Amino acid sequence: MGAPSGEVIVTGGLGFIGSHLVDAYLEAGHRVTIIDSSTGAVIDGKDYDRDPRCTVIRQRVEDYLAAGGDFAGADRVIHAASYVGPASILSRAGRLGHDIIGSTAPVIDACIGAGTPMCLFSSAEVYGRSGLLDEKDDIVVPTHYNTRIEYAIAKTLAEAMVTNSRQHGLRGIVIRPFNVAGARQSRAGGFVMPTFVQQALAGKPITVFAGGEQVRAFIAASDLTRFLIEHMDAALDSDDTVINVGNPANAITIMGLAHQVKKLLGSASPIVGVDGRSVHGPHYAEAESFHKIPALRAATSLGWQPRIALDELILSTAAYYRAREDRRAVNAPL
Amino acid sequence: MGAPSGEVIVTGGLGFIGSHLVDAYLEAGHRVTIIDSSTGAVIDGKDYDRDPRCTVIRQRVEDYLAAGGDFAGADRVIHAASYVGPASILSRAGRLGHDIIGSTAPVIDACIGAGTPMCLFSSAEVYGRSGLLDEKDDIVVPTHYNTRIEYAIAKTLAEAMVTNSRQHGLRGIVIRPFNVAGARQSRAGGFVMPTFVQQALAGKPITVFAGGEQVRAFIAASDLTRFLIEHMDAALDSDDTVINVGNPANAITIMGLAHQVKKLLGSASPIVGVDGRSVHGPHYAEAESFHKIPALRAATSLGWQPRIALDELILSTAAYYRAREDRRAVNAPL
Ligand SMILES: NC(=O)c1ccc[n+]([C@@H]2O[C@H](COP(=O)([O-])OP(=O)(O)OC[C@H]3O[C@@H](n4cnc5c(N)ncnc54)[C@H](O)[C@@H]3O)[C@@H](O)[C@H]2O)c1
Ligand SMILES: NC(=O)c1ccc[n+]([C@@H]2O[C@H](COP(=O)([O-])OP(=O)(O)OC[C@H]3O[C@@H](n4cnc5c(N)ncnc54)[C@H](O)[C@@H]3O)[C@@H](O)[C@H]2O)c1
Repeated sequence: MGAPSGEVIVTGGLGFIGSHLVDAYLEAGHRVTIIDSSTGAVIDGKDYDRDPRCTVIRQRVEDYLAAGGDFAGADRVIHAASYVGPASILSRAGRLGHDIIGSTAPVIDACIGAGTPMCLFSSAEVYGRSGLLDEKDDIVVPTHYNTRIEYAIAKTLAEAMVTNSRQHGLRGIVIRPFNVAGARQSRAGGFVMPTFVQQALAGKPITVFAGGEQVRAFIAASDLTRFLIEHMDAALDSDDTVINVGNPANAITIMGLAHQVKKLLGSASPIVGVDGRSVHGPHYAEAESFHKIPALRAATSLGWQPRIALDELILSTAAYYRAREDRRAVNAPL
Repeated sequence: MGAPSGEVIVTGGLGFIGSHLVDAYLEAGHRVTIIDSSTGAVIDGKDYDRDPRCTVIRQRVEDYLAAGGDFAGADRVIHAASYVGPASILSRAGRLGHDIIGSTAPVIDACIGAGTPMCLFSSAEVYGRSGLLDEKDDIVVPTHYNTRIEYAIAKTLAEAMVTNSRQHGLRGIVIRPFNVAGARQSRAGGFVMPTFVQQALAGKPITVFAGGEQVRAFIAASDLTRFLIEHMDAALDSDDTVINVGNPANAITIMGLAHQVKKLLGSASPIVGVDGRSVHGPHYAEAESFHKIPALRAATSLGWQPRIALDELILSTAAYYRAREDRRAVNAPL
């Protein structure tokens, strides 16, 4: 790859995945504009404020655009801004659909207006069922609607809007990340990896929900960012609009993860089974996918492969949280 | 039923179903406020302007609310406003999701704010598959997204938003109408009943899409309005948030419908098979449900039954179009 030097706009760039993307684009020689409302930010962004290659706009992207902002001159827009996390979304019950669609629609329009390609962050949550999940599979929506299902439907609708907007000239792709992990991910949203790692480091009980037999496949944030940095142009030209990004080789039961975290970190924490609702409240719901494993078809056909193994992922998360607090979860009991 | 006399707000009240609702509520002794953008209106609403029991607000409901309008004092809100119809929606590709969610979210908020119960109009399109379709069934979203699927996902998301908003005190139900028919329905949207009836009356070819073996079950608009007039209060108190409203007894293949229309109207029109795309353009798509038949569970458990048989429905549609033009389709070839 030559060093492209255009401007990349990252919505949600102060969040977990967004900040990894910002770092990766800076590293690759781009200028970066971050648009982040700070509602779910995992960093304060002061380092980016000081970086002459960076601009940080602390505003909701829909407000930025409604106030006359645009994407003119940008090379690409990565739309990662969203309410995220099984616990974080609960307070948005009934409103989450509009949160997600109301920010995505103006981003699509502004990309069409400026002729800028975009990547929408969807989620593996859309599948709504268990197993090895392929981009060509139907999506299942159970009708016992809860906030987690509202999130999944909203992401599905955003996918359809990006796809159908190709009729209006949009160059757009959608990625469906499967359980991303790494430095800076906060336990505050209800994510399991930073929760287990921080519990193990603190010697507090490692809390396993729903029996622990559910299977998740964890991918390193750096593997995900590498997909976008190296393969986004090819993806924009391919027929697959929707692309799974995950790491099936890292599939493990949640109980298995608890034991692996405890072992690798040499922790004395007990492993305990608890009901997620006793931690996150009565509306907390488990994912519809009991086993959530990505089939990699579109992404590997572009020449991408995930690299980082689970142990390395656990250790790098631990290294991060040995050195500092979890900024978002600072007042949350472990 | 005693004569309730509160105010009912009908969004989309100048449309096909909305205008039947307005008439039924007036008949039942209510005052009615119509909020309709006129984009898809099948009547001009001048009769309502002259009626002292009616107020017509010609504006998008989201604009009305954004400008400070509210639902204070209203007895109930029927949110029927939407882009509708397999042909009408095509021009909204990629934007339809936001059209539907961007109008529904403020209606929900305003209903919570005013303490007003609401009924959302969803659609049988949400099911995304064939057969006898029950409210408790999973919804299937095929991933070959097109505008018709975008419509279905947006309606599904709106359903989830209403359901989850019960956590914030919303009293809300959702109805899923199955192929409603009757006076004033326009062929302009791509609806089959007014198309066949107007073709038969004009002696023009009756155009059957996709082979004609697909099954639809037609319900009279008056059966649908009767459900809301007589059973909405009970529905609000029941555990079923989502309610199918259709008439399985009227199930017929589209080819069968063509023959029945021709016979009942004594028409000399030939029946011809055509590709819907040759009429509505290359993006036209058939419904995902090849056989679309309602299971009636929630509605019948409240004591409701559809009454109007298919022949009566064909004849009343014909009576309407013998007497006048199709207002929306006035420039569309038959
Ligand atoms: N973390 C995962 O495992 C995972 C899995 C699947 C999908 N995703 C998707 O990846 C994206 C990033 O997720 P994350 O884990 O980094 O979440 P995150 O909460 O760490 O980051 C999201 C960021 O978006 C910001 N934000 C929210 N709404 C905004 C708005 N309207 N305008 C501007 N900024 C806004 C928040 O302040 C936050 O900094 C999301 O779209 C999410 O749905 C994440
Ligand atoms: N006709 C059917 O068989 C059928 C089947 C299933 C569901 N539905 C649903 O029933 C409802 C009514 O459908 P219909 O057949 O009467 O359609 P219609 O097009 O005849 O009426 C819809 C009305 O809504 C108005 N409108 C559109 N967007 C608006 C907005 N943002 N604010 C205010 N008004 C707006 C249009 O001007 C139109 O008058 C829709 O929600 C539709 O999805 C209809």
